[in-house]
Amino acid sequence: MKRVKITDHFWRKRIDIIRDEVIPYQWEALNDRIPDAPASHAMKNFKIAAGEESGEFFGFVFQDSDVGKWLEAVAYSLENDPDPELEKTADEVIELIGRAQQDDGYLNTYFTIKEPQLKWRNLRDKHEMYVAGHMMEAAVAYFEVTGKRKLLDIMCRFADHIDEMFGKEENKLRGYDGHQEIKLALVKLYKATGNERYLQLSKYFIDERGQQPHYFDLEKKARNDDKEFWWHDEYGDYSYHQAHLPVRDQKEAIGHAVRAMYMYTAMADLAIETGDHTLKEACERLWENVTNRQMYITGGVGSQDFGEAFSFDYDLPNDTCYTETCASIGLVFWAKRMLGIEKNGKYADVMERALYNGTISGMDLDGKKFFYVNPLEVWPKANEKRQDKTHVKPVRQKWYSCACCPPNLARLIASIGQYVYSVDSNQLFVHLYMGNESELDIAGQKVQIIQETNYPWDGNVQITLSPENEREFTVAVRIPGWCKLAALKVNNELVDIDCCTKNGYAYITRTWKKGDKIVLVLPMPVERVRANPKVRENVGKVSLQRGPIVYCLEEVDNGANLPNILLPKDSELEVTFQEELLGGISVITAKAERIDDQAWGNELYMTYEKDTKSITLKAIPYYAWCNRQPGEMLVWIMEK
Amino acid sequence: MKRVKITDHFWRKRIDIIRDEVIPYQWEALNDRIPDAPASHAMKNFKIAAGEESGEFFGFVFQDSDVGKWLEAVAYSLENDPDPELEKTADEVIELIGRAQQDDGYLNTYFTIKEPQLKWRNLRDKHEMYVAGHMMEAAVAYFEVTGKRKLLDIMCRFADHIDEMFGKEENKLRGYDGHQEIKLALVKLYKATGNERYLQLSKYFIDERGQQPHYFDLEKKARNDDKEFWWHDEYGDYSYHQAHLPVRDQKEAIGHAVRAMYMYTAMADLAIETGDHTLKEACERLWENVTNRQMYITGGVGSQDFGEAFSFDYDLPNDTCYTETCASIGLVFWAKRMLGIEKNGKYADVMERALYNGTISGMDLDGKKFFYVNPLEVWPKANEKRQDKTHVKPVRQKWYSCACCPPNLARLIASIGQYVYSVDSNQLFVHLYMGNESELDIAGQKVQIIQETNYPWDGNVQITLSPENEREFTVAVRIPGWCKLAALKVNNELVDIDCCTKNGYAYITRTWKKGDKIVLVLPMPVERVRANPKVRENVGKVSLQRGPIVYCLEEVDNGANLPNILLPKDSELEVTFQEELLGGISVITAKAERIDDQAWGNELYMTYEKDTKSITLKAIPYYAWCNRQPGEMLVWIMEK
Ligand SMILES: [Zn+2]
Ligand SMILES: [Zn+2]
Repeated sequence: MKRVKITDHFWRKRIDIIRDEVIPYQWEALNDRIPDAPASHAMKNFKIAAGEESGEFFGFVFQDSDVGKWLEAVAYSLENDPDPELEKTADEVIELIGRAQQDDGYLNTYFTIKEPQLKWRNLRDKHEMYVAGHMMEAAVAYFEVTGKRKLLDIMCRFADHIDEMFGKEENKLRGYDGHQEIKLALVKLYKATGNERYLQLSKYFIDERGQQPHYFDLEKKARNDDKEFWWHDEYGDYSYHQAHLPVRDQKEAIGHAVRAMYMYTAMADLAIETGDHTLKEACERLWENVTNRQMYITGGVGSQDFGEAFSFDYDLPNDTCYTETCASIGLVFWAKRMLGIEKNGKYADVMERALYNGTISGMDLDGKKFFYVNPLEVWPKANEKRQDKTHVKPVRQKWYSCACCPPNLARLIASIGQYVYSVDSNQLFVHLYMGNESELDIAGQKVQIIQETNYPWDGNVQITLSPENEREFTVAVRIPGWCKLAALKVNNELVDIDCCTKNGYAYITRTWKKGDKIVLVLPMPVERVRANPKVRENVGKVSLQRGPIVYCLEEVDNGANLPNILLPKDSELEVTFQEELLGGISVITAKAERIDDQAWGNELYMTYEKDTKSITLKAIPYYAWCNRQPGEMLVWIMEK
Repeated sequence: MKRVKITDHFWRKRIDIIRDEVIPYQWEALNDRIPDAPASHAMKNFKIAAGEESGEFFGFVFQDSDVGKWLEAVAYSLENDPDPELEKTADEVIELIGRAQQDDGYLNTYFTIKEPQLKWRNLRDKHEMYVAGHMMEAAVAYFEVTGKRKLLDIMCRFADHIDEMFGKEENKLRGYDGHQEIKLALVKLYKATGNERYLQLSKYFIDERGQQPHYFDLEKKARNDDKEFWWHDEYGDYSYHQAHLPVRDQKEAIGHAVRAMYMYTAMADLAIETGDHTLKEACERLWENVTNRQMYITGGVGSQDFGEAFSFDYDLPNDTCYTETCASIGLVFWAKRMLGIEKNGKYADVMERALYNGTISGMDLDGKKFFYVNPLEVWPKANEKRQDKTHVKPVRQKWYSCACCPPNLARLIASIGQYVYSVDSNQLFVHLYMGNESELDIAGQKVQIIQETNYPWDGNVQITLSPENEREFTVAVRIPGWCKLAALKVNNELVDIDCCTKNGYAYITRTWKKGDKIVLVLPMPVERVRANPKVRENVGKVSLQRGPIVYCLEEVDNGANLPNILLPKDSELEVTFQEELLGGISVITAKAERIDDQAWGNELYMTYEKDTKSITLKAIPYYAWCNRQPGEMLVWIMEK
């Protein structure tokens, strides 16, 4: 029994937007009812596959996954806010999916309609397992929220089919997925059904990946394809898919960032479920690499447009990054699993960083426009004029034809409650701070939990615990890495944090009774964060962070040519909460200087020492940028 | 009568390398005798076209131009150093070219051999006039040096043929060149032959360019081509070739940088020869745009890889620029013509900047390896790993298959003497400082001129003038823009520079007699040059310049992670000449600081204030970089 009801002023607003805007809009999109938008054709593909309409398949090879992601977001939304009409629509979609499934369990409208003879012939590129994975995640979510097994059964049949097709046995194909979505989905399916075969299948895919002879080569040969893959490096054709080495030998994040995040998530899942130490260690190594060498301060990952991919250690350009919304979302998934391996605040710190910055920056405040790419520095003219920066859009776009990010964000936000707590038998861990009213099973009984806070604008958190009966258990509250002077009280009595804190969590073990109150005070001064000197882009620069929120400068507040703003080292950073601005945000202001380009004149190069003039700098939360007039944006500010 | 014999320690060395290394090497390359190098086939193409060998055309559509550039460099080299054997080889090549020419004057081995039916059908892409232009330049140079008319006659016949084909008359094609090389070449042909038709043809090409209906569209239609050109912007398909507007309406440099430079050069030529004020003003506007908004401190132009092109004002990234060696060479050509329009030091300053930095950086000190792209910041790992930086090579390459830059540099260096002086009836202008012994016609008589200097390492210049007879005329010596405290003496008497200086030239009018000595003292302190604040890349940074030489840091002298070096504002910059280093250079050293990345540790982001440690920074001339161990390089240094 586990129920988390978000009441939080910050997240509840976003959950409502997903419910009121994103889910209905995507439904219209899936049914091609958005004027002027590129056709999705996703629902029609299912109808054609089910033999209920005529026509040709249209869309990407992974078009079905949009329906899966939509259903998954619907499930979480129904958990937050029951809606019989929406549920009825979802049920009908599920029925249709069932009718589109083939007798042998196979399910993928592209191959059913268009290339039935080419099923499972090109695992590397054709996304069959990716689509299956998203549909499995939807099935599990829908089952857990509604108790309805229809989609779960459909996807179990498909999983059984896949299990019959793939494996080490002689009569099976020894292949594995190109886009690593199915592995984590199979773990979910296993946990929902208790069917060990799904766990074993996921483990098989993980173990087999990157082994020699390389399956991507074998299947290439089988289909008489002798072209080099477009991503080719010292490892050959495989890094893009993280299939260049057996996963346990991988030490650096490489290739397509979203694929990488999903794979690392599955690796952590399997480490937890199977107790495999070698997988755990691989996860830990990769975590160190990503978070200490390849992650932006926003929790964005993927430093380059080419391949939407990781590049290499400490290569973190602010204006040409890819930092896909989906990759940050994947980092949240992975962080959650790492917390399952070990309760260490470093994982929750990154999860929180991504949640409050690089994921939600992907959506505007109205839920109507979206970023794929989340840059840390924007000069719109360069994005318009320079070919190597056109992937960075200076304004959010409506719905995309390849619409991976918006529905991914929808399912993340609608399920945000899943990230707040975790329970290990008689220990309750509080990972995130946001208002909620929840009921969890701890130490064998129901405990009601009410969390109240004005986070992220204020670090005061009150948690009221009400177990059915008095009972001894442990509550471990996270002390965020950004917080240097936390204070903790239980029923108004100060707790010695230093004594009871281990790896970023303060452990309080006592006999809890109804109405016990934990008060956590997390002071939030504005911090000047600096980047490791190996990050060349950020030499001499600081990023402003307050609590979990990373700030940025926008042209609308600070004028054009933001890189010319210099923040003196001794300048005081003031915070004011502005209710009416951008949905209510804490704004940072500071006295700063701006290089005076008027005084400089027309020359391009001079020995002239530059003048500066005094200005008041105004910074807003990064996630909220580009919700007013479009213009420049900057996270890393030159310090003086 | 005009003869400039370079005796200069700096340039003579380079002229020798062109003579001893580059010209012989290219000759071997043109004849496919370089083991392991991609075949050129250029000589063989001519033999096939002449009907003397069998086989197919091979190479680029502009492959012939390599022969033209080689011949032009040979001509200048023969002027510097007579070499009967080399001249005999050149004469034979010219005979062969003559035999490859068609009866109607047409000359282009690609079309003669491969696509005779497609002549003049695709002026935009097929480079027929470009190749003709290079061959004309060679013809003029060879004629002027050797007095031999053979190639000149060949190219006049071809020019006559082109003149018959193109023009406003009804029976002619109303087209113009895709790559604007022929326009400046036709002006040279006119000056060498006195034939006005060539000047008029050049003027026709300039006047017609960018007019509506657009010829590139007309010829596309005629060949049933409806594909959009790969460079397409708000002006349509034409900006890449600077054909988006009539040239007199062009205000900003746009498109392929080398094409632009050649076109502006021709525009200035025509402004001089025809006295056309509208062309002169267009040149001046474009000059302001390029040099005050789109030029690197090295004299490099072309900020982006895409299209090897200009991007937009103040967009001057240091690590992703294209800054082709040929574009800097083109800037030198253009600057020379602008000096023909107006004697203004700003033109000579840019010419000198490009000559001592962004052009000669294209060749290593041995003349064996070459850069196409001349970056201002190099992190080799990024050039290897990041797709958007692979165009920047961290080391010079041997000979390229598309070998535009090396022979272009060869002809520039071999003809460097042409840039030193100019004479306007009774005025001698001294634009550049380098050792030479020359004989020029000034005010109707021969004047022997001996210039002695240790430039660019030392700003003392002695010019000894020996007219045949005593005669009054003016000597105008350039006071470089980088020099703030020049001193000038004539026969040991101080001249009041302020009084006699106008637009960067100090004018000395007197009756000159044999052995009169001008001594110019140009102090060369190291300057910290700053970039216009609109150049975002360079905020907080300085570039070190001494005299005309721009400096850089190399990893071999300063360790890795060069962007972490901070140069304190008050740090003294010391200069020592090191005879044995890199062919003899003045080295700059200074006390500086380096951010200590050891002290920082493993974290990616911290509030930690960075430590620095003291180092001695060592800077070398930019042109000399990458002549030792490969590694990082940096021009713009963070100031502290
Ligand atoms: Zn996405
Ligand atoms: Zn070139």
